[in-house]
Amino acid sequence: MEALDYHAEERRKAEFDVEEMKIVWAGSRQAYEISDRVARLVASDPVFRKDNRTMLSRKDLFKDTLRKAAHAWKRIIELRLSGLFFSCGMFIPAIKGQGNEEQQQKWLPMAYKMQIIGCYAQTELGHGSNVQGLETTATFDPETDEFVIHSPTLTSSKWWPGGLGKVSTHALVYARLITDGQDHGVHGFIVQLRSLDDHLPLPGITVGDIGMKFGSGAYNSMDNGVLRFDHVRIPRDQMLMGVSQVTREGKFMQSDVPRQLVYGTMVYVRQKIVADASCALSRAVCIATRYSVVRRQFGSHNGGPETQVIDYKTQQSRLFPLLASAYAFRFVGEWLKWLYTDVTQRLQANDFSTLPEVHACTAGLKSVTTSATADAIEECRKLCGGHGYLSSSGLPELFAVYVPACTYEGDNVVLLLQVARFLMKTVSQLGSGKKPVGTIAYMGRSEHLLQCRCEVERAEDWLKPKVILEAFEARAARMSVTCANNLNNFPNQEEGFAQLATDLAEAAVAHVQLIIVSKFIEKLQQDIPGKGVKRQLEILFNVYALSLLHKHLGDFVASGCITPKQGVLANEQLRLLYSQVRPNAIALVDAFNYTDHYLGSVLGRYDGNVYPKLYEEAWKDPLNETVVPDGYHEYIRPILKQHIRVARL
Amino acid sequence: MEALDYHAEERRKAEFDVEEMKIVWAGSRQAYEISDRVARLVASDPVFRKDNRTMLSRKDLFKDTLRKAAHAWKRIIELRLSGLFFSCGMFIPAIKGQGNEEQQQKWLPMAYKMQIIGCYAQTELGHGSNVQGLETTATFDPETDEFVIHSPTLTSSKWWPGGLGKVSTHALVYARLITDGQDHGVHGFIVQLRSLDDHLPLPGITVGDIGMKFGSGAYNSMDNGVLRFDHVRIPRDQMLMGVSQVTREGKFMQSDVPRQLVYGTMVYVRQKIVADASCALSRAVCIATRYSVVRRQFGSHNGGPETQVIDYKTQQSRLFPLLASAYAFRFVGEWLKWLYTDVTQRLQANDFSTLPEVHACTAGLKSVTTSATADAIEECRKLCGGHGYLSSSGLPELFAVYVPACTYEGDNVVLLLQVARFLMKTVSQLGSGKKPVGTIAYMGRSEHLLQCRCEVERAEDWLKPKVILEAFEARAARMSVTCANNLNNFPNQEEGFAQLATDLAEAAVAHVQLIIVSKFIEKLQQDIPGKGVKRQLEILFNVYALSLLHKHLGDFVASGCITPKQGVLANEQLRLLYSQVRPNAIALVDAFNYTDHYLGSVLGRYDGNVYPKLYEEAWKDPLNETVVPDGYHEYIRPILKQHIRVARL
Ligand SMILES: Cc1cc2nc3c(=O)[nH]c(=O)nc-3n(C[C@H](O)[C@H](O)[C@H](O)COP(=O)(O)OP(=O)(O)OC[C@H]3O[C@@H](n4cnc5c(N)ncnc54)[C@H](O)[C@@H]3O)c2cc1C
Ligand SMILES: Cc1cc2nc3c(=O)[nH]c(=O)nc-3n(C[C@H](O)[C@H](O)[C@H](O)COP(=O)(O)OP(=O)(O)OC[C@H]3O[C@@H](n4cnc5c(N)ncnc54)[C@H](O)[C@@H]3O)c2cc1C
Ligand SMILES: [Ca+2]
Repeated sequence: MEALDYHAEERRKAEFDVEEMKIVWAGSRQAYEISDRVARLVASDPVFRKDNRTMLSRKDLFKDTLRKAAHAWKRIIELRLSGLFFSCGMFIPAIKGQGNEEQQQKWLPMAYKMQIIGCYAQTELGHGSNVQGLETTATFDPETDEFVIHSPTLTSSKWWPGGLGKVSTHALVYARLITDGQDHGVHGFIVQLRSLDDHLPLPGITVGDIGMKFGSGAYNSMDNGVLRFDHVRIPRDQMLMGVSQVTREGKFMQSDVPRQLVYGTMVYVRQKIVADASCALSRAVCIATRYSVVRRQFGSHNGGPETQVIDYKTQQSRLFPLLASAYAFRFVGEWLKWLYTDVTQRLQANDFSTLPEVHACTAGLKSVTTSATADAIEECRKLCGGHGYLSSSGLPELFAVYVPACTYEGDNVVLLLQVARFLMKTVSQLGSGKKPVGTIAYMGRSEHLLQCRCEVERAEDWLKPKVILEAFEARAARMSVTCANNLNNFPNQEEGFAQLATDLAEAAVAHVQLIIVSKFIEKLQQDIPGKGVKRQLEILFNVYALSLLHKHLGDFVASGCITPKQGVLANEQLRLLYSQVRPNAIALVDAFNYTDHYLGSVLGRYDGNVYPKLYEEAWKDPLNETVVPDGYHEYIRPILKQHIRVARL
Repeated sequence: MEALDYHAEERRKAEFDVEEMKIVWAGSRQAYEISDRVARLVASDPVFRKDNRTMLSRKDLFKDTLRKAAHAWKRIIELRLSGLFFSCGMFIPAIKGQGNEEQQQKWLPMAYKMQIIGCYAQTELGHGSNVQGLETTATFDPETDEFVIHSPTLTSSKWWPGGLGKVSTHALVYARLITDGQDHGVHGFIVQLRSLDDHLPLPGITVGDIGMKFGSGAYNSMDNGVLRFDHVRIPRDQMLMGVSQVTREGKFMQSDVPRQLVYGTMVYVRQKIVADASCALSRAVCIATRYSVVRRQFGSHNGGPETQVIDYKTQQSRLFPLLASAYAFRFVGEWLKWLYTDVTQRLQANDFSTLPEVHACTAGLKSVTTSATADAIEECRKLCGGHGYLSSSGLPELFAVYVPACTYEGDNVVLLLQVARFLMKTVSQLGSGKKPVGTIAYMGRSEHLLQCRCEVERAEDWLKPKVILEAFEARAARMSVTCANNLNNFPNQEEGFAQLATDLAEAAVAHVQLIIVSKFIEKLQQDIPGKGVKRQLEILFNVYALSLLHKHLGDFVASGCITPKQGVLANEQLRLLYSQVRPNAIALVDAFNYTDHYLGSVLGRYDGNVYPKLYEEAWKDPLNETVVPDGYHEYIRPILKQHIRVARL
């Protein structure tokens, strides 16, 4: 019997080689093969079944997660996949980045082997974004050669660390270092929280879970925790001493290793976040695209089939820019991976020259890609109409689990303001002969960019990467320079920066979007094999860039980069591009190579067999265990029978 | 002892009379008093306690909801509040709108008294937006004078109706009427689903719940249902016969009552949805505003307190337009209430002249206000940083329960396209002497609007309502006329409409935003008592309009309504306005008069005592019942102790 495939016809329509595109998406043939193998292993393993997760109570959900984690760990060892995807969040990267040689040798093997489980305890009830404001103290006691870790206020309670509440045995605690009555600012300390024998919290430690979070599953499967210290003592060598040290005598010293080394860790973490954005976004887009092909509504002629909703231009103009963004984020994420290697090598060679630019670009990319992805997932849910609201669509939980990416590892708005600071500094140094490098190199051509005119005369002129690039460069440069000029109208820069913060954040977005656009162009300049593959990527690139241009038309037109007429032409071209994406839409999401298990969505099923499965899923709800619901006799029947005892008032 | 109030200082800063603003918000003194009284009753009634809802299993959550509903019903009877807020969704309004006299007399009293519980069963697995495509059949059997209700396909299963799955005894079922082999399209039928004795489904009826939905609480407390008919027979007089009838002989007849009467119901429902939008939005804004005042981050000088995050301009430019929107939606909702009365009176006098305009304006307002509100709730959550992600912030569940408003009662994009059709029709008739009325009257001045120039020269010129109104009118008129002109480039209008759908939807948004702006202006022209109240509303109006102008700058500049320079001036003015809102922010959200119970948010507490309460809430989570979590021995300990049995592969 042939397998049912409602998408078969769509798949036949594709104008490119999907298998080759899968390799482009994965980054390399090897990466493709590994991820494909792992995905199949996970999908076929009954322990990893996902259904019913949304119906479990908090406790059962958590236990179910422990069960899966333990099994995953077992499989990782069995398959010798070690290190491949098990991650204790920031615990290990931070020890790597901030510990000295001995500390790394002592703690990392234990952490890798999971003889200890560590969490990253930075945020407190009262401080998240402002790390320098943390209140937990680590006071050196020279008598005993120990630090005394203490929570002096309620707001100093550690709050949010993932894995802290129930699982972790250790925490990397950020606390104000105090020696001899002097505050040296915030440093990291490795603190054991629980006994390795019976998992009970050690004396002086109060630890628990912070309670329910967004969604039904999502982070509720995790024990984000609260932690308080009552004068807990740890040995001196448990302060991370890679960058600064406290001596036996209690002397605080900066190491000769430059502080900037920690930036390496940050680039690492943020490139992972950008990669995650492309994953989450592509998942949502895959679901919405497949369902939009299956779903038909209106437009039947003479009893024929109705129109597939993906054929509506509004559906296309909402969906295809997100599809294009998934590819765009994928490629910029790939480039960030390269950047991480580059930065690491430079740091080792004591070359810190690119750091400010790298910092701005990673902070900005984290911000822009996660914000766009969060919005996109919700848009994909809406694109599925009513059925997108069902848990079985997979989209509600995908949203709930994704959105905190806009907040953790740097609030997205705070990050944009950091990017803006860098932009303003760059502009202010333009005259000084200091040549901007890397992603900010275009500022070196700002004289040209501030007066150039876009040469588009016909819609198809907008297909040229060079034309698009210049428009994005001109917009970014002009917005930055305008902000810089406006800053000069304020008596002092800080006041100006505060007053113009919103404009500055917008300028930062323009800069970051330019980075994404330019990295997509660089990708297209590579040799990309496979029938029609490059052509599809070119179309997606144009969709990405022109849909941004349309969305931010105010920026482009107001700063004089393009004329209103050219904006209209871009929009016309966009409409044509949507028609070119349409026949390839299913194949373009197939190229993500996601298993149905990974997608976890009835609407996004590979075979498109949506309706029978929705129907089947419904009956599994516990409410359907009985036809007459629990509560009928107490609450419904008395009303229907008008047997309500009413109090005399 | 004086009550703790962290917001006291903020409340003192307010420059207007909050008590008077409460009345403006409520609509009248009487409305204020009723809602205040009810809110207090509910808040003080232990049965209505809300906590722990997110931790309940689906079944317990549902039962808990039944318990509350039963209690609410009892209290309604006791307090003689009947009719005030208990609603069976669309069951009653539809019988009122589409039933004939006898049917109303028979069914409405039973429904009001809750001797029967009805749901509105329109949507099917395969059809939602396209109501005319519904597949359920109601075939007249002249032998027995009955209709046979049947579900001929899987996709014809009713799917989504709220209250259907477990609670309803009756349903208003929309089905294709078939007499003598002829299909007369979709009509409404009252069908009993369950026995009134034991609540068991009647023969031929399969009914159940459709399963988990978005969020943890939200609509999971409701039994949205699935329903299938296997040749279920109902008496002929259970077809709603207000508009069309089937005679004893099986003859189908249109009544002389005009079909348009059903529009009354629709206006009623949509004005309720717009009112709900202002409620949901104001709730989210209240939480985010209060927390933004309590939350401090960065900016401490010499050990002084840090900056309240509400003082950051980015926070203001994200939050204050939402605050202004809450007021804007409130006033347009109030006006819609008036419109409903007006339309009802006209319909009774057989005046159908305003119907197309009323339909377009209510459809558009439903779409624009619900989309904006859904996005705004999520933005408010992000404005609260990490803590907004906690269930105890109230924001995740508010989002989950609100978002389907973008989909039910008309998918928001489908509605915009309906508005666009009306706009195109209006434009095409401009030459014909037919004078546009009501919210579309401005099109009658399109000759002026297509060439007028905005006269703003200084930032403060943007404070004039007349200037703003004209800019919004010009933008809306130009976008519509441009679309209409472009339609003419297509060989046929339908093809053009399909191709230009995205532009048309954007033109519709421009039209609807103009309506909201103009109704806000009309409100300001009324006599508004109370010290400083009107002044605050004027500021909010300007914030609402200018923030829209900034967001849609591309529209305004590209269509030549304003120059880029004027756009810059609007933005400057906006910044000044934010500073004027700032000292009044807390009082402006106090004016909503929400109890802490209603808000259901630790972050939005009236007294601002956020941190101790967050800390307290955390410990209530079931995961905190034990220090060592369930699952430790099975799953965590073996890993830590490296006692994992690994399969030999
Ligand atoms: C799911 C999840 C997991 C987490 N995991 C961990 C973890 O493992 N370990 C850990 O230590 N922490 C963790 N966190 C905490 C997270 O890192 C913080 O929530 C994050 O840093 C944001 O800080 P905040 O909550 O203090 O936001 P706030 O800074 O309080 O933000 C509130 C608002 O103020 C604005 N704002 C703040 N400062 C400024 C400024 N200078 N200018 C303009 N606007 C400003 C923000 O934009 C935001 O709108 C987690 C959080 C979540 C939600
Ligand atoms: C919480 C909730 C409660 C509900 N309660 C009820 C109830 O009590 N009773 C009841 O009968 N129903 C109920 N519904 C169903 C609801 O009315 C439908 O889901 C709604 O009408 C949308 O229809 P749909 O799901 O078919 O969306 P679809 O029409 O399938 O939408 C899918 C996508 O197609 C697009 N699309 C569709 N047609 C067009 C077009 N012509 N042009 C351009 N784009 C188009 C849409 O914009 C959307 O992006 C409920 C739904 C929810 C989520
Ligand atoms: Ca739950």
